[in-house]
Amino acid sequence: MEFWNQHPYHLDDLQVGQRFTSGLHEMDEGQILAFAEEFDPQGFHLDHEAATASLFGGLAASGWHTAAITMKLLVRGGLPIAGGIIGAGGEVSWPGPTRPDDRLHVEAEVVEITPSRSKPDRGIVTVRCETKNQRGDVRQVLVAKLVVPRRAVRQSISPQILASV
Amino acid sequence: MEFWNQHPYHLDDLQVGQRFTSGLHEMDEGQILAFAEEFDPQGFHLDHEAATASLFGGLAASGWHTAAITMKLLVRGGLPIAGGIIGAGGEVSWPGPTRPDDRLHVEAEVVEITPSRSKPDRGIVTVRCETKNQRGDVRQVLVAKLVVPRRAVRQSISPQILASV
Repeated sequence: MEFWNQHPYHLDDLQVGQRFTSGLHEMDEGQILAFAEEFDPQGFHLDHEAATASLFGGLAASGWHTAAITMKLLVRGGLPIAGGIIGAGGEVSWPGPTRPDDRLHVEAEVVEITPSRSKPDRGIVTVRCETKNQRGDVRQVLVAKLVVPRRAVRQSISPQILASV
Repeated sequence: MEFWNQHPYHLDDLQVGQRFTSGLHEMDEGQILAFAEEFDPQGFHLDHEAATASLFGGLAASGWHTAAITMKLLVRGGLPIAGGIIGAGGEVSWPGPTRPDDRLHVEAEVVEITPSRSKPDRGIVTVRCETKNQRGDVRQVLVAKLVVPRRAVRQSISPQILASV
């Protein structure tokens, strides 16, 4: 089994403005239908005719499907965080729906870094992730708060503090 | 094929404070592994030993899996919105991870209703959705902005305006 939780960037290695770009995910109609049948069984995600008559004007992936694919792209190298990608939460919006012919990638930018006051081994890193298709259409914006480990404390605290341990 | 987009509540039928409760979803280890393999392949979602050594202290569902199940519960009668549940976006947080033995349901409350100024046929309804397990542990809080249709305009505008149409 292949895990993707061994990545290089600790909190101490990140800086505001730093950017990462993921690989690609090729969407297709089969994936849209399979996800919708399991998790979001609404006509505009399942049926061309119902979708055309809806607000979406054509078959549209569930927003949660776009979110799940975004996570896959981040985990598979799109956002190489030490210990894996652990989200505490975030804000998500879908400016337009993912379509069956979309090839998606994610562009992530570090927007805030907040070391924890109470837990010296970690902090919160806020990352803005835009999921775009091959034409640059933004299909999702996710501003996520991630729990990110610091490098081992012995590397970052002063000898004076070490002496008191 | 079974669609779930025929529901009774238009924007005009909703009021702030109104509450809805969904049916149940029984999580299990197989579902957690299947979702994680496809969308969130990290050790703490895939492997007991890796999960026990992680921040989660044991096998934990992907937060996006909890989000997808929440959507399923809302669509399958948990939030009976006319025309289906169409999210423009929202804020999501995961106070604690969903576990393999969790039985989930969603409690939704209408917190804001904003008719559109530019589009008289719709508005935005903000709904706070808490996804809880059988012990009342909150596994997700989603504050979602939904696009909700109004009842046909002819029912809500005055005869004077109708005369000018």
